[in-house]
Amino acid sequence: MSASSITPIRWCDDGHLELLDQRALPDRHQTLVVTSAAEAATAIREMVVRGAPAIGITAAYGVVLAALEEGNDSWQARLASAMTALAESRPTAVNLFWALKHMREIIAAHQHTEAAPVAALLEAARAIHRQDLEDNLTMGELGADLIARSAPCAVMTHCNTGALATGGHGTALGVIRSAWGRGLITRVHANETRPWLQGARLTAWELEQEGIPVTLAVDSAASLLMAQGRIGWLVVGADRVAANGDVANKIGTLALAVQARHFGVKVMVVAPSSTFDLGLASGVEIPIESRDARELTHQGERAVAPSGVDIYNPVFDVTPASLIDAIVCEQGVIERPDRSAISHLFTARG
Amino acid sequence: MSASSITPIRWCDDGHLELLDQRALPDRHQTLVVTSAAEAATAIREMVVRGAPAIGITAAYGVVLAALEEGNDSWQARLASAMTALAESRPTAVNLFWALKHMREIIAAHQHTEAAPVAALLEAARAIHRQDLEDNLTMGELGADLIARSAPCAVMTHCNTGALATGGHGTALGVIRSAWGRGLITRVHANETRPWLQGARLTAWELEQEGIPVTLAVDSAASLLMAQGRIGWLVVGADRVAANGDVANKIGTLALAVQARHFGVKVMVVAPSSTFDLGLASGVEIPIESRDARELTHQGERAVAPSGVDIYNPVFDVTPASLIDAIVCEQGVIERPDRSAISHLFTARG
Repeated sequence: MSASSITPIRWCDDGHLELLDQRALPDRHQTLVVTSAAEAATAIREMVVRGAPAIGITAAYGVVLAALEEGNDSWQARLASAMTALAESRPTAVNLFWALKHMREIIAAHQHTEAAPVAALLEAARAIHRQDLEDNLTMGELGADLIARSAPCAVMTHCNTGALATGGHGTALGVIRSAWGRGLITRVHANETRPWLQGARLTAWELEQEGIPVTLAVDSAASLLMAQGRIGWLVVGADRVAANGDVANKIGTLALAVQARHFGVKVMVVAPSSTFDLGLASGVEIPIESRDARELTHQGERAVAPSGVDIYNPVFDVTPASLIDAIVCEQGVIERPDRSAISHLFTARG
Repeated sequence: MSASSITPIRWCDDGHLELLDQRALPDRHQTLVVTSAAEAATAIREMVVRGAPAIGITAAYGVVLAALEEGNDSWQARLASAMTALAESRPTAVNLFWALKHMREIIAAHQHTEAAPVAALLEAARAIHRQDLEDNLTMGELGADLIARSAPCAVMTHCNTGALATGGHGTALGVIRSAWGRGLITRVHANETRPWLQGARLTAWELEQEGIPVTLAVDSAASLLMAQGRIGWLVVGADRVAANGDVANKIGTLALAVQARHFGVKVMVVAPSSTFDLGLASGVEIPIESRDARELTHQGERAVAPSGVDIYNPVFDVTPASLIDAIVCEQGVIERPDRSAISHLFTARG
C-alpha cells in the first residue's frame, strides 16, 4: 500500500511550489521553483508537469500562489484572473477544471473577507493532492482485482500515468504497481509514446526505480506483442471520460484498444471521478488539443522532417466505450461501461 | 510515367558505386562512395541504403565490386566470400537473396573462365536495377487502378517505399505517385515510422520534392485519421511475401492493417515478384530482424530512456493475408490474397 517515493509536486511552507521538470527526465533531475499563478500556468502549458491529475493539483496550488501575490487589484480580481490563465493552460484534461471549480467554491465562501483566504485555499489544494493519492491507492487495489482474473500475465501501458502524473502511486501505473505488489503480473510492456516519449522517459524510469520488470518498445510494436499472446491487459489512464464511457486519452490509445479487441487483450481504463465529465454526452464533444509541429519535425536541434511539411499533432484521441472492458474509478469498477452503468455508479455513491 | 529524379544508387563507370546516405536525410545530402563488396555490405547493414528492392540492387552491384577487386585468392573464392558477407547484411528482405541468386547464376555460367566475368555481372546488376524501375511503373498503374474505385480519396502510407527504397518511382509510394499523376488522390498521410523515422525523413521529403500534398503524423495517430473517415486506402510495401499471402513489412504494418479493417479502410500491399518467397508456407516462417536498442534509448547523444532498460526493437512484423485487400505485383493484382490466388498468378505467368 506504500506510495511511490517520486515527488513531482511539492508545496513548500514558505509559500512556493516545487515541480520536478519532466521535460528533462530521465537525463537530468531538475526542480523548477514556481512562485506565481502565471508561472504555474506556464509550467502546465510547457509540460514541466503533465498527467491529468497532476495538472489539476498544480492548478489548485497555482490558485494559492495567486492568493499570496500582492498587487493593486482586489484579491478577488487577482484570483479571477489567475483562474482564467490556469484554465487556459491545457484544454483536454478535465481534472484541471474540476480542481479550479473546487477552488472557486472556497473563494465564493470567503467572497466578502478583506484578505484572500490563503489558509482555506491551501487546505483545499492540499486536500485535492492528498485525496488523489488515496484514490489512486484505492483504484490500485480494484484494478489489481481485475488483473487477478488473468494472473499471472504481462500488461501493456501507454504514456505515463504514474507517480509523476498524479498525486502519487498513479492511475493505470498505480494499478500496475499494486498488481506487481500482489504478484499478479510478470512484466510491463511500456510503449514509448510518441511524440513526447512519456513511456520511454517517464514510465520506464519510474518502473526501473522500483525494480518492476519493464520492456520498452515503439508504439507500433504493440500488435506484434499482442499477436504473440504476451499481453493479458492493456491498462491506460484517461484525460476525460464522457457520460457514455467514451474516453479521451493520449494519442494512440484508440489504436491500442482496436488492436486489443482484435487480439483478445482486455482493456482497462483507470480514472478517478475527477476525470469524469458527465456533462458531455459522448466523446465526440471532447475538445482535442493539438501541439507544436516541432515535436515531430525536430530531435533537439536536428531536423528530422523536411522544413515546412504539414504536421498533424493531436495529443489525444477518443476511445469508444464499446472497446473498453472496464473503467476503474475510486468509487467502483464499471465493467462494459455505458451510460447506464456510469450513471448508476455515480448516483448510487452520490 | 516519368520516374522520380531522386537517385539513391548510382553505378559509376570507373568502377565504383555511389549511395545517397539516407541516415542523414533530410538534413544533409551526402553521397557515400563504395568501392568494395565489404563496404557495400556495411552500407546495407548500417542503412545508408534501405528498402527491400534497393537492398537487392545494392547487393548486386556489390558483387560487381567484388569481381573488380584484386587479391591472392581465385576470383571464384573472392566472389563466394563477398556473396556470404552481402547475404548476412540484413535478414528479412528477400530481394537481397533474390538478387544474389541471380548473380550466382551468372557466376556459375562463367565458372571456368580465367578472369571474373565483370562485364556479365555488371550487365546483370544493371538489368536488376532497370527492371525494378520498370516493374515499379507497372505496379504504379495497377495500384492506381484500384485506388480509382474510391477516388478521389486520401491515402495513408508507412515507412518509405519510394525512389529511395527502390530502383526508382517506388513500390507503395510509386502507386501513390501514379495515382496522384492521374488525379485520383487528394493527400498523402505519412506515418513518421518509429524508430528510424523513414516516413518523416524520407517519405515526406520525397513527396515535398514533387509537390504532392503530404501530412505527417505520429504512427499512433493512424486510428484517429481512419476514424475521421479521412483515409480511403492504406498503401504499404513489403519485405517478404509468403506463399499464402502473409506479408512481412516495417514494424507497425500489422497494427495499421488491424485498424484499417476495423475502420473500413482498404489495405494494398505493393510488392514486385522479387519480394515473394514461395518457399515459405506462411508468415510465421519469416525471420524478423531486431536492431540496436539505441534507436529507442537515444536521440543523437541525448538519453531518452533510463540506462539499461530492456528494449524490444523488432524491425518488421507479419500481417496475415486475411487483413489484406490486394497485393499488387508487376505480374498482376491479387485481390483477397491466399495460397491459391498467389499460386495461380505465378503459375499462369511463370
